[in-house]
Amino acid sequence: MLEHHYLDDLFNPSSIAVIGASGTPGSVGMRVMSNLMLGQFAGKLIPVNPKYTTLFNKTCYPSITAVSEQIDLAVITTPARTVPAIMEACGQKGIRLAVIISAGFSEMGEEGKVLEEAMLEKARQYHLHFVGPNCLGLMRPHSHVNATFDNNQAMPGSIALLSQSGAICAAMLDWALERNIGFSAIVSMGNSSDLDFGDMLEYLARDPLTQSIMLYIEGVHHPRGFMTGLRAAARVKPVIALKAGRHASGVRAVHSHTGALVGDDQVFSAALHRGGAVRVMDIDQLFTAAQVLSSERHTAGNRLTIITNGGGAGVMAADTASDLNIRSPEPNAALLSKLDAVLPPHWSHQNPIDILGDATPERYRQVIEPCLQDEQTDALLTVLVPVAMSQPLKVAEELCAVVNTTQKPILACWMGGKQSQASQALFAKHHIPCYSTPEEAVRAFSYLSAYRQNHQLLMQVPQPMATLEKLDVSGAALIVQAVLSEQRRILTTIESKAILSAFGVPVSQAMLAQSAAEALVLAESQGFPVVMKISATDITHKQDVEGVQLNIQDGEGVRAAYQKIMERVKAHRPGATIQGVTVEPMYRHPHYRELMVGVVRDKVFGPVISFGLGGSLVSVMKDNAVALPPLNTFLAQQLIAKTRASRMLGEFRGKPAVNMDALVTILLRVSEMICEIPEMVEMDINPLLVDEKGAIAVDARIVVDPVSRPLKKYGHMAIHA
Amino acid sequence: MLEHHYLDDLFNPSSIAVIGASGTPGSVGMRVMSNLMLGQFAGKLIPVNPKYTTLFNKTCYPSITAVSEQIDLAVITTPARTVPAIMEACGQKGIRLAVIISAGFSEMGEEGKVLEEAMLEKARQYHLHFVGPNCLGLMRPHSHVNATFDNNQAMPGSIALLSQSGAICAAMLDWALERNIGFSAIVSMGNSSDLDFGDMLEYLARDPLTQSIMLYIEGVHHPRGFMTGLRAAARVKPVIALKAGRHASGVRAVHSHTGALVGDDQVFSAALHRGGAVRVMDIDQLFTAAQVLSSERHTAGNRLTIITNGGGAGVMAADTASDLNIRSPEPNAALLSKLDAVLPPHWSHQNPIDILGDATPERYRQVIEPCLQDEQTDALLTVLVPVAMSQPLKVAEELCAVVNTTQKPILACWMGGKQSQASQALFAKHHIPCYSTPEEAVRAFSYLSAYRQNHQLLMQVPQPMATLEKLDVSGAALIVQAVLSEQRRILTTIESKAILSAFGVPVSQAMLAQSAAEALVLAESQGFPVVMKISATDITHKQDVEGVQLNIQDGEGVRAAYQKIMERVKAHRPGATIQGVTVEPMYRHPHYRELMVGVVRDKVFGPVISFGLGGSLVSVMKDNAVALPPLNTFLAQQLIAKTRASRMLGEFRGKPAVNMDALVTILLRVSEMICEIPEMVEMDINPLLVDEKGAIAVDARIVVDPVSRPLKKYGHMAIHA
Repeated sequence: MLEHHYLDDLFNPSSIAVIGASGTPGSVGMRVMSNLMLGQFAGKLIPVNPKYTTLFNKTCYPSITAVSEQIDLAVITTPARTVPAIMEACGQKGIRLAVIISAGFSEMGEEGKVLEEAMLEKARQYHLHFVGPNCLGLMRPHSHVNATFDNNQAMPGSIALLSQSGAICAAMLDWALERNIGFSAIVSMGNSSDLDFGDMLEYLARDPLTQSIMLYIEGVHHPRGFMTGLRAAARVKPVIALKAGRHASGVRAVHSHTGALVGDDQVFSAALHRGGAVRVMDIDQLFTAAQVLSSERHTAGNRLTIITNGGGAGVMAADTASDLNIRSPEPNAALLSKLDAVLPPHWSHQNPIDILGDATPERYRQVIEPCLQDEQTDALLTVLVPVAMSQPLKVAEELCAVVNTTQKPILACWMGGKQSQASQALFAKHHIPCYSTPEEAVRAFSYLSAYRQNHQLLMQVPQPMATLEKLDVSGAALIVQAVLSEQRRILTTIESKAILSAFGVPVSQAMLAQSAAEALVLAESQGFPVVMKISATDITHKQDVEGVQLNIQDGEGVRAAYQKIMERVKAHRPGATIQGVTVEPMYRHPHYRELMVGVVRDKVFGPVISFGLGGSLVSVMKDNAVALPPLNTFLAQQLIAKTRASRMLGEFRGKPAVNMDALVTILLRVSEMICEIPEMVEMDINPLLVDEKGAIAVDARIVVDPVSRPLKKYGHMAIHA
Repeated sequence: MLEHHYLDDLFNPSSIAVIGASGTPGSVGMRVMSNLMLGQFAGKLIPVNPKYTTLFNKTCYPSITAVSEQIDLAVITTPARTVPAIMEACGQKGIRLAVIISAGFSEMGEEGKVLEEAMLEKARQYHLHFVGPNCLGLMRPHSHVNATFDNNQAMPGSIALLSQSGAICAAMLDWALERNIGFSAIVSMGNSSDLDFGDMLEYLARDPLTQSIMLYIEGVHHPRGFMTGLRAAARVKPVIALKAGRHASGVRAVHSHTGALVGDDQVFSAALHRGGAVRVMDIDQLFTAAQVLSSERHTAGNRLTIITNGGGAGVMAADTASDLNIRSPEPNAALLSKLDAVLPPHWSHQNPIDILGDATPERYRQVIEPCLQDEQTDALLTVLVPVAMSQPLKVAEELCAVVNTTQKPILACWMGGKQSQASQALFAKHHIPCYSTPEEAVRAFSYLSAYRQNHQLLMQVPQPMATLEKLDVSGAALIVQAVLSEQRRILTTIESKAILSAFGVPVSQAMLAQSAAEALVLAESQGFPVVMKISATDITHKQDVEGVQLNIQDGEGVRAAYQKIMERVKAHRPGATIQGVTVEPMYRHPHYRELMVGVVRDKVFGPVISFGLGGSLVSVMKDNAVALPPLNTFLAQQLIAKTRASRMLGEFRGKPAVNMDALVTILLRVSEMICEIPEMVEMDINPLLVDEKGAIAVDARIVVDPVSRPLKKYGHMAIHA
């Protein structure tokens, strides 16, 4: 038996008071009462409403204060304006948990916000935790608790559903009932003013009745609690998340390329993956993933062997596998010879293993067994197309007969409709997931594979700070303080590079000239060719104002460039605050690849690292991947591998492979920089040039913000402590 | 009444002979007979089999010759080896149409191929057309013809299905039955040795019973007939295609970047779109598209207005719309004021129009009407989430009440399961497509929108050849002949550029030097800076062998570069046939964008034009789109717009917009070049530099092939003439 958890009574109360219980047909108070009764709640059910003395043959109390029995859970359905006083009464009565269904709080504007604050204050005062407000309620079928005003009763099962929207909750339950899917818990989160996803996830992680968790999320209120809960849950069971509003993007005033490049949704995905969750894109997928992941079988890898009696179905399965980066391993010599021994000569001799249209149940069996034993096979998908001669149910029986001989996941795809119904029932009995199209079946396996991969990410621990080189963290902090003390937010290129240097990132030495003559001196002392760039903190895109001259060959060129840059920039941006023109060596080794590393501060999840193709096509090619800090070597490599640009880092077009260690080290340094300089809100290194020897930051920009307080990463929300 | 078509009797025969009819349970001959009888075929049914004198109470004939009646259609189920003789007999008897179900032909190797050829010869001799061999057969429910050996009888309906795979045919029919979907025709195409997709499409285009056509394709045998039939059909009714084997790629020996870049499947998509078909990616989508497109309502644009009683459902609909490039127009002032008048103050005030969880049927009606009248709205999606207070059926009735007041498509999404069943039945009666998730509903609308768009493509006519400039077509042809006469396939850069020049494409003038001294003379006479590149026809990737030196500034540099290029290329590729080193001016206007135009000859669809990002990152960024020639201005613009690179062609990073006319003109010239030089099998222009003034081809490569005979585009297959 697990030790007592503060949310236990939410899911398994011995007594429930329904405050606002009613006898008026159609009212929320009546629906909650009747749902609890119809659900056969076995504990004490106490209606509270001054309008009644009895309700549904139970004593009805005028107020919570008037109840003498102990109350584990209060369900509140009364109008918003009455809730703060009710919370006070509940608190005094010693109630520690509530579900507040009532609407009319912060979702309704200023007046409601005041009520929500008042209610929260009472809750804090009495250490009373609550779900809602503005929600559908909570169901726990195993405990016969249906504290919702929905029209349905959930069946008991192993899937937990946490939904930010009550309407989606209701729709999903209705849909699940039609498909005989049961739940271990359904919680409509509502406004989440107190208990949020994080708290629920933490509870469900320990809940033995819950085998997988579905999340429907519209926005995260408490990101740190969310990440903590997500990690706790995903460590021990699959968590599948559907996020609505993928294309909605908050308006952000950005001062960097990275800021313009990184989308809110990209960050959300990175956070979900880092937290170990499997992300799906629609409700259909949510159920598919939850069902396949709630089976006890998990895959050891992403290699799927496909058996089919129809070539076309096999090809469609292989297409989807390829789309989803699922591997279909070719049969090795050992498997080939086993299959040759039992199959007619025209079988496909490759994966998908097409055992031909006249395949008998016996032929299926003869193929299934060696495929399951094959060491290259992590999971098996058996496809049956109902052609005239096939015997769907007989083949299904063969598959069910072997299911307990292996730990590998077995999936079935019985195509067609009518002819596969009997088989589907048999598969359900044997816990073999069965689909009606090859695409759906392969997609289901991809969730098993994604869960395994994300689980690996979850097990990554941060790497200790670099110690080899002595990083000058305090020097960098001093630069930032100096900039902030001048009321500036955007660092000059020289300041930005100085900070990078302090963290051990190699930079090209740019020097500031304030006249053509000064520029000439700098160029001559650095050696030609040189690059000259406008230095003006309020200009993000130097190229857009024609503020960059590459490959200047001689003194004459320097003078001309200085003049030209000044004229053009002043023409483009008459009001800009120009510091001068920087002069730096031209890096033109033919082996260089142009990359970009950046940082942006997401308004929900805080700092995010972005990596991808650099240069001037960044905004067109949008080839970037993002990750949450802190990075370690594994995570940095994963980040790099997600980009198209990674394909040019090996031997590429006559150039030797780049020094990957140097590149990874820079990502680690940037990750450290984020932790050590919390004031940094945006950063670009573009281009970061990398070749076989090393990497160098050629241009850089850092934006700081004094308001941005240091975030203690993955700490716990004070409110939930 | 339409005039007689040579395939009429295939779909509406008065008499059918089943050759190989049998009484043996489970045999194909018995199944075909019993399917025709169960399907209540009203014409004359004649079994042919020497083993019987009567079969199913009908006179059974020993051979087709023994039958005295006229026979419209022969269905052949006998072993492959008997078929050529049977075809001879059928031909002599004057039969003009057959369905050959028998297997054992070219799909079984050499022996079968010989039989298939023999059978085809008989067919040609007697002008006998046939479906198959190696197929499931053919169904025409309206004529009570079920000439298949499937286990099911299709219901009559308006969707035609042509499937290359008999198994997929059977699975789809089984599935359709479960969903009450009927068919106008089902044809299992088998090996398509005679009648192919093109012929069937041409027939179904004229078939008044067919309102939409579904294709399941694994590979196209007769591309020209396919394209002709597709265009004929798609002009008058929706054609939806599912292609299996999206990732399968034939092994191609390529000598160009374009060859390596363009995928078979990308070409197939371009061909389908050009032919006016809507492409889908799985069987689920195939049915969704066929159903929504077989309704009489087509959309005038891609602007979808969404009404919902659940915020989350609305957001998910908007997400999918954004994914699929469906526009969700914001309500204009007129619509806003109409909605404000009837909605509670907290409604969303944007599209999706969230009319809140307590929406009554009346509120739905008050919103549906103005939205349908809104001139910005091309189609309406009404979403209902079954929350406790909603009345799904009542709202459905409101929607059905307005359906005949408008020509705009109306779609419904009734979420949940049980609670929406009654509404679904009502919608079916009123021909309103209804879905259970917002994603599916929006996707269905996207097919309506895609059909409209592809229809526009279909109506494009070729532009007349350029006349303003005199193109030197014969000069170009002479160069190609000279190269071929030298047994070469790959043109030198200078030859390639000469051909481009002959077609009016501006090129940079490269000149060949065979010594450092020659290079120096060329450079001095052209003026610095220059670019030097290795000239060796057997080297595709000059950069890969370090055979390119950019930006050479002076005579010293030329000498050094010549030496270096020669040394490095010889080191990389000791056996290469080196012509020398070309010298050309360095194009370095800061406004240039690096693009790429190419041609590749697809093994099925022939020449294809590719456009996209140019430069050395081509293979990494894979930013290219393809189109089939001939192009006109509209099609060239569409091709450009499909790439990410198109985003840098307007004003971009301080550069003025490029001269789009110049770019489009080059694409048109390349399109003409393909038609005029049929020997050209591959072509790269990379980079093609474009700025505000014009475009110039800086490097080019052409590969020719003497074997490749001129293709008469979109002509008719001789065999089907």
